[in-house]
Amino acid sequence: MSAPAVLRPREDDSVATRLARSAEVRKSGAFLRTADFADWLGARGRAHDFRVDRIPFADLDGWSFAPDTGNLVHRSGRFFTVEGLRVTRDEGPFREWQQPIIKQPEVGILGILAKEFDGVLHFLMQAKMEPGNRNLLQLSPTVQATRSNYTKAHQGADVKYIDHFIRPSGRRRVLADALQSEHGSWFYQKSNRNMIVETDEDIPVDEDFIWLTLGQIGELLHADNVVNMDARTVLACAPVAYDEPGALRSDTELLSWFTAERARHQVTAERIPLRDVAEWKRGDMAIEHGGGGYFQVVAVSVAADNREVTGWTQPLFEPVGLGVTAFLTRRVDGVPHVLAHARVEGGFLDTVELGPTVQYTPDNYAHLAGSGWPPYLEAVLAADPSRVRYEAVHSEEGGRFLNAESRYLFVDADEETAATDPPPGYHWVTPGQLTSLVRHGHYVNVQARTLLSLLNSGCVRL
Amino acid sequence: MSAPAVLRPREDDSVATRLARSAEVRKSGAFLRTADFADWLGARGRAHDFRVDRIPFADLDGWSFAPDTGNLVHRSGRFFTVEGLRVTRDEGPFREWQQPIIKQPEVGILGILAKEFDGVLHFLMQAKMEPGNRNLLQLSPTVQATRSNYTKAHQGADVKYIDHFIRPSGRRRVLADALQSEHGSWFYQKSNRNMIVETDEDIPVDEDFIWLTLGQIGELLHADNVVNMDARTVLACAPVAYDEPGALRSDTELLSWFTAERARHQVTAERIPLRDVAEWKRGDMAIEHGGGGYFQVVAVSVAADNREVTGWTQPLFEPVGLGVTAFLTRRVDGVPHVLAHARVEGGFLDTVELGPTVQYTPDNYAHLAGSGWPPYLEAVLAADPSRVRYEAVHSEEGGRFLNAESRYLFVDADEETAATDPPPGYHWVTPGQLTSLVRHGHYVNVQARTLLSLLNSGCVRL
Repeated sequence: MSAPAVLRPREDDSVATRLARSAEVRKSGAFLRTADFADWLGARGRAHDFRVDRIPFADLDGWSFAPDTGNLVHRSGRFFTVEGLRVTRDEGPFREWQQPIIKQPEVGILGILAKEFDGVLHFLMQAKMEPGNRNLLQLSPTVQATRSNYTKAHQGADVKYIDHFIRPSGRRRVLADALQSEHGSWFYQKSNRNMIVETDEDIPVDEDFIWLTLGQIGELLHADNVVNMDARTVLACAPVAYDEPGALRSDTELLSWFTAERARHQVTAERIPLRDVAEWKRGDMAIEHGGGGYFQVVAVSVAADNREVTGWTQPLFEPVGLGVTAFLTRRVDGVPHVLAHARVEGGFLDTVELGPTVQYTPDNYAHLAGSGWPPYLEAVLAADPSRVRYEAVHSEEGGRFLNAESRYLFVDADEETAATDPPPGYHWVTPGQLTSLVRHGHYVNVQARTLLSLLNSGCVRL
Repeated sequence: MSAPAVLRPREDDSVATRLARSAEVRKSGAFLRTADFADWLGARGRAHDFRVDRIPFADLDGWSFAPDTGNLVHRSGRFFTVEGLRVTRDEGPFREWQQPIIKQPEVGILGILAKEFDGVLHFLMQAKMEPGNRNLLQLSPTVQATRSNYTKAHQGADVKYIDHFIRPSGRRRVLADALQSEHGSWFYQKSNRNMIVETDEDIPVDEDFIWLTLGQIGELLHADNVVNMDARTVLACAPVAYDEPGALRSDTELLSWFTAERARHQVTAERIPLRDVAEWKRGDMAIEHGGGGYFQVVAVSVAADNREVTGWTQPLFEPVGLGVTAFLTRRVDGVPHVLAHARVEGGFLDTVELGPTVQYTPDNYAHLAGSGWPPYLEAVLAADPSRVRYEAVHSEEGGRFLNAESRYLFVDADEETAATDPPPGYHWVTPGQLTSLVRHGHYVNVQARTLLSLLNSGCVRL
C-alpha cells in the first residue's frame, strides 16, 4: 500500500529561481575559483596517461566489415555499427544522396548530478577523456553512459554515480529528463536521455570530478573546447526561466508552424549496406567521399588508465572542415529572439527539428555559386565584428567524432534582416520558447541545444 | 517588409474560456437542436446512395500484389500499401511476431473549422460516408484529407474547405495543430495533422455539413458509432483547461517517467515483404492469421455519389472481435486522475505512447490463463455497473478499417486499486496533464485521445 496521496503543484517555480541564483555565481563556487579551473583540468590531464593513434581498419580489435553488407560491426553485436543511408528529399540543393551513418539504437544516459552548497546549486562535472577531442580532456556530465556501458557489455568497471539516474529515491529529485536527438547527419535516429537530478545525499567526489555552479560553467563556455557536447546538451535542458512579456508569435502559432514544416517535407531515409553506398570508397585507413568532402570514417586505438576500460580500438567519423553554427538574434519590443531553422537531417527520427539559423560546413558549399548558398550563411560569415555577440569553437561528441569542431556564434541581425519576414522554414523564437520545447524530445537539434546552453548558463545574454 | 512587430502573449487563456462556454451549450446550437441531429443525419444518409461490397482481391481496380514482395500496392504508387512487419520486444506475453501492416507515409490533415455564432464557438462537422463504418455515415471533421486527396492523386474533386487549413490568412487563427499518431498495431508510423482553425469569414455551408457546439458534440458522443475517430482525435487536441489545483505527480515527474519508459523498452520493428510474413496466409478473399485471430485484410468495392470520387475499390483491415478500451479513474485529494499505460505498439514512430489503462481485444487473450491477462483487463470486464461512468461503442478509422469497433469506458477504480501503486508502465495522470501532452505529437495514442475527447467535450465529467 502506498502512503496517503498528497497533491503536488504541476510546476515548481522555485527550480527556475534556484537555477538563476546558481547562474549568478560566476567567479567562485564552494570548491573552486573559476580562475583556477584550467589548473585543475591540467592536473587531471597530467594524472593520466592518454594516447590516441590512427590505425588501419585491419588493426581494429573486435571490429570488422561484415561479409554480406560491408557494415563495420563489433563482434559482440553491441556498441554501434557503421552502415549506409540513402536519403531523398523534395527540396534544397541536395535532393538525393548516400552516405555512411552510425547506427546505435540503444538509448544512453547523459546525466548531471546537482546539489546545493551554501544555498547555491552546484553541478558535478567530470574531466573526461574522449578519443575524438583534439585536446582529449574536456568537462563532461557526471554520467555519460551508453546502455552497453552500464549493463557491462564491455566488461569494464561500473559507471560512477549511475545509480542516481536509474534508481529512484526519496532523496533524489529530477529537474530535467528528456530524450534528445543527436547529430542527424552522422547518426541514424540516435537519441540519449538528458537528465539533471538533484540530491541532498552526501556524495563522495572522485578525483576526476568537481562541483561547479551554473555561472562557473557559463564562464568556462567562453573558452574553446573546454565544455563537451554532452555537458552542453544536458545544460540546454535545464528548466531556466526567461523574463519575457511575450513573443513575436504565440506558442500555439509556433507549434503550428513547426507541425506544418514537419508535414510539408517529403523525406525518405533508408538504411542500405555500407558496401553499396555510392560515391564513397573504402581504403585501408579511411572510408572517404570521392569528392573529398563531408567526412571520413577512420579507426583509432586508445590507451587510457581512468576510463571504464584501460584500452580499446574503435571507428570514428572525422568531418572535413570546420563547421559554422550560429543563431541570428534580434529584439522585438525589447524581447530577445533567435532565428530558428526547421532543418531536415537524414538521421532524424521525424524529418525535421529546429536548428540554428546557420549550421553548415562552408567547405561543402564551396562549389556552389553564392546564390546556391544556404540562407544567412553569408550574413554570418561576413558579419561586422560589432554584431558578433559570442564566438567560440566547440567539439561535437568525442566518443564518435574525431576533431569535429564548429564555430558557435550569436550574431545580431542587421536592420534589414530583422525587418524582413524570413523565408519559409525560418521562424523567430524566444529563448523561453526554446526552453519550453526542449522539455520534449525531437524539437531542438543538438547544435541549437549547444547555443541554448550558452543562454541558460548566462554565458551569453541577449 | 513586414508590418511593425508587436509582442503577443505566449498563451491566450481566452481560448480555453470560450471552449468551456461552447461545452456548456448542449441542448441546441445556433443551427440545430441536439434532439434533431439524428433526423438530420438520417436525411443526409437518404440523400445519397452508398453501397459497400466485399470483393475478391482479384476484383480490385488499380490494386495488386507486387510480384517481388507480395505487397498489396496501388498502381499509382500512392495512397497506401499493405506490407509486412516483424516486431521484437523484450517483455510481455508476445516477444516476437510478424503481421501485415498499412504503410502510408504521407501526412494527412484532419481539420475542424470553428466560428463564433451568438458568442459561442461552433464547429463545422460533416456527415461523411466511410466504407469501413458499420453504419457507413458518421459525423466527421470539416476536412479529412490525405495529401493524395488534396494534391489530386486520385483525380477527384477539390477537398471542400481545405484552404482554411493550408492557406494562412489574417482572418484565420489556429487553436490546435499537432501531428498525432494513428493505430500503432495496424499502421506503420502513420501520423496526421490534427487541426482546429477558427475563422470570422462567411462560410458557405454545404448540405452535408452542420455547425455544432462542443457541448452538442459531447451529447452525441453518448451514442454508439455517431462521431467518427477522426473527429474524436481532433477534439482531443482542443486546448481545454481543467481546474486542477495539482496532480499526484508534477509534470516534470510525469515527463521523466515517460522518458524512462521510452528508454527501457527494447523494441525493433522491421518492414518485411508481405509474402514473407509467417503464420499469415492469403486466400482469394482475405489474408488471415493461421489461428484466426487479430484481424484480416480484405477488399471492398464502394459506390457513393458525394465523395471526392464516385466509386472505387480498396483494401481494408477487419479486426476479429470487439475491442475494450478503458481508463480506470480515481480522485486524489478531490482531483480526478486516469491511469495511463505506456504502451508499446509495433507501428509507433518512437516505441511507446500513453494509452488507456486497458486496450485489448479480449478474444486475442482467450487462450491465456487468467494470470497471463494484461493488468486491469479483468478489473474492467468484471467491474460493478455502479463503477462504470461511461460506456459506448465507437468505430476506428472507417477509411482503412472495416467494422473496427471498441467499447470505450471510464471505470472508477475500486478502493484497493486506487490505494495500491500501479505496476511499472502505469501512471496516474490528470486530464489537464493529458491536455498539455497532446499539444505535442507522439505522447497520447489514438485510443486515449478518443477517451480524452469525451472529457474535453463534457460528455464525461469525472
